Amino acid sequence: MTDFLEKQLNALHASVHRYPLGKEPGTDLQLPDIIIANYPEEYDQNKKTILIYGHYDVQPPGDGWTTDPWILTEKEGKLYARGSTDDKGPLLAWLNALEAYQLSNVDVPVNLVFCFEGMEESGSTGFAAFASSPDNRGIFKHVDAACISDNYWLTTRKPCLTYGLRGINYFNLTVEHPGVQLHSGMFGGCVYEPMTDLILLLSKLVDSKGHILIPGINELVESLTEDEVKEYATIEFTTQDFQKTIGSEANIYEDPKDTLMHRFRYPSLTIHGISGADSSPDQTTAIYPKVTAKFSIRTVPSMDQKSVTDLTIQYLEQEFRKLGSKNACSVKLFGESAPYWLGSSDDANFRAGKAATQRVYKTEPDLTREGGSIGVTLDLQNALGDRSIMLLPVGMSDDGAHGPNEKLNKDNYIEGSKLLGAYWYYFANPQS
Amino acid sequence: MTDFLEKQLNALHASVHRYPLGKEPGTDLQLPDIIIANYPEEYDQNKKTILIYGHYDVQPPGDGWTTDPWILTEKEGKLYARGSTDDKGPLLAWLNALEAYQLSNVDVPVNLVFCFEGMEESGSTGFAAFASSPDNRGIFKHVDAACISDNYWLTTRKPCLTYGLRGINYFNLTVEHPGVQLHSGMFGGCVYEPMTDLILLLSKLVDSKGHILIPGINELVESLTEDEVKEYATIEFTTQDFQKTIGSEANIYEDPKDTLMHRFRYPSLTIHGISGADSSPDQTTAIYPKVTAKFSIRTVPSMDQKSVTDLTIQYLEQEFRKLGSKNACSVKLFGESAPYWLGSSDDANFRAGKAATQRVYKTEPDLTREGGSIGVTLDLQNALGDRSIMLLPVGMSDDGAHGPNEKLNKDNYIEGSKLLGAYWYYFANPQS
Repeated sequence: MTDFLEKQLNALHASVHRYPLGKEPGTDLQLPDIIIANYPEEYDQNKKTILIYGHYDVQPPGDGWTTDPWILTEKEGKLYARGSTDDKGPLLAWLNALEAYQLSNVDVPVNLVFCFEGMEESGSTGFAAFASSPDNRGIFKHVDAACISDNYWLTTRKPCLTYGLRGINYFNLTVEHPGVQLHSGMFGGCVYEPMTDLILLLSKLVDSKGHILIPGINELVESLTEDEVKEYATIEFTTQDFQKTIGSEANIYEDPKDTLMHRFRYPSLTIHGISGADSSPDQTTAIYPKVTAKFSIRTVPSMDQKSVTDLTIQYLEQEFRKLGSKNACSVKLFGESAPYWLGSSDDANFRAGKAATQRVYKTEPDLTREGGSIGVTLDLQNALGDRSIMLLPVGMSDDGAHGPNEKLNKDNYIEGSKLLGAYWYYFANPQS
Repeated sequence: MTDFLEKQLNALHASVHRYPLGKEPGTDLQLPDIIIANYPEEYDQNKKTILIYGHYDVQPPGDGWTTDPWILTEKEGKLYARGSTDDKGPLLAWLNALEAYQLSNVDVPVNLVFCFEGMEESGSTGFAAFASSPDNRGIFKHVDAACISDNYWLTTRKPCLTYGLRGINYFNLTVEHPGVQLHSGMFGGCVYEPMTDLILLLSKLVDSKGHILIPGINELVESLTEDEVKEYATIEFTTQDFQKTIGSEANIYEDPKDTLMHRFRYPSLTIHGISGADSSPDQTTAIYPKVTAKFSIRTVPSMDQKSVTDLTIQYLEQEFRKLGSKNACSVKLFGESAPYWLGSSDDANFRAGKAATQRVYKTEPDLTREGGSIGVTLDLQNALGDRSIMLLPVGMSDDGAHGPNEKLNKDNYIEGSKLLGAYWYYFANPQS
């Protein structure tokens, strides 16, 4: 894939540099190179510069495909293949835009810095180090704004620009006693059972309606402003859209604006599972000595990671003491946390995105945030400081990234290529 | 093993009958025969008849042995081998007792019906059908009392007779929504999460101190009588004994009598695990559409199975309705339940056991119950109606049945063989 990309970029007269990332930590596996390509080959100081991020790796295919996931198959206006929408399609759309300028003999009005990585689906291993390395400062030096095309429209009806992401604090909660696995017949009722304590603690975290019960957490959340409320009113999104996506009617909020707010700008807490107990469907009867639950909190402005961590640990330790149990309890941050990201939706970058959307789709784009985290956004933001990043998706909400039968509508691919090219134009030529 | 036993029993002049059990349901595996052996070969109507239960199958060895689990190894007065105490040792002790009578030219004072099975460690598959079959009524016809030697002293200091077992009601609690697995970033806070509801329901079942919170359950438990309290006072059992067994200081009760009561005569509830969520230690971020918890309630007199089931299901359904969730919830009895068993500890059978213990060990045995279930006890009780069953253990609390380095003290084996033989004598010759 790297060779293919290098060839394509060279054919488009970009100068290509490969950045090897070394081996994956703890393994002998060579990480795929990050590809940086500059267009034009020589930096033109009379033009602004845009950094384009995309990734050329894809998810494993998984089961359930009705076509060969490795052969792009067009059916009824849809392009089926693994990576069609996430993220090979959008990546190629950027190259199509560049090719279109060249075939039309129109000068590309900006300097372009393409930044394509191959580890996005595995947590972008190596990318943060790459982006923050002093050796690589030159890559970002002239960049005025960045654009990532690696997410989706909110619905199937209207394009969007995305200016925010929730962060994530991921926790492990362990309850244990130093003893052995016990038979529930011989010892049930006589010992403090770690699983009982764990369940009681977990039940203190969140209620059925998703309201976080950890004191102080909700107070960290920025108040809703009138301007925001107005913005939500303009987003085209219905409860039917949402129910179709989740495959059930288990939505908490009747008003789709509330659903969006709870995805975009309010925190959430999910319990993902418990290890150390018996997760088999068999009829077993043990009391397990050490059980660990994992849960995550999605964070939003202005929840700083440390406060969330401190409040959560402090609360659970306090609730554990209330139990009066003789077991031991520990709460720890687990794996990588990521802060929320919030861009400005009203700067030159986003104004260019809006103008391009108007031009291609004849409509105002929805201004959205995403509920999940996209790690590279933060890595790029760190490298770029206060320079703007915009998420400008090509695909739709029903593309099924990561699942079987991933697709990109042919229309989205064609109009999306136009959109990305138009975005360059309007960034170079701001509308009054 | 069956051939070996048949040979041994024939050598002791017993008449041996094998009862084939057919194939294990759903497999092509032949179940091992139940062996019934009568001694003397001809029923002597002038003698009472005792049925002896034992099992010749053992647990898999597992890891952690310091000797070969399949070679009986004597070290410092202990006989190490898989099955030494559970249950090959006690089974052979019965045969030793018979041999001793014969070598001493003393007439065995009772008719014996040996009943040895080979599926005990796998839930005694086939035994209930065998014991309840009208075809096999003849086996049990003349039996006056039965004795099972397949449990352990309460401590390492004093023999015991066991007259009760807790029952078990095993439940599955499922919460689900009909949709798909969701990304917690995109959907956390917007949908009713099955795992949250499941945790909230589980937290309503039992508190940290093991007190069952299902209304009506504790009211089914027989009140503690003064006679019982006196009995507990005679049992030699310390908190140190208990802590040594559980390998920690996570005992709920300071008074060892309370510990015993909660093992013998009070119910307990254990949550064994959750399936359908992520039980791996990895950092995953899904909301799972269907999660199932399994928990069991150990039952005691007079908690009838149906009331326990009805109260539990009714309560959980009611608590689920209180949540106001749009998920679906179901509670079901799972696998095989077993009622509690309570024998009479003061009948001719137990008096014979007490007299034999006095004779061999020069002490009154502890009168105990077990916290777990031993399924065959109930199967035999069903076959025998109101005829008495006694559990008369040979091994000690620290024998480590099911674990690595299972052992039977040589002393227990020798004195135990005497005990079992003496029990026959005192059953035939009750003391005034």
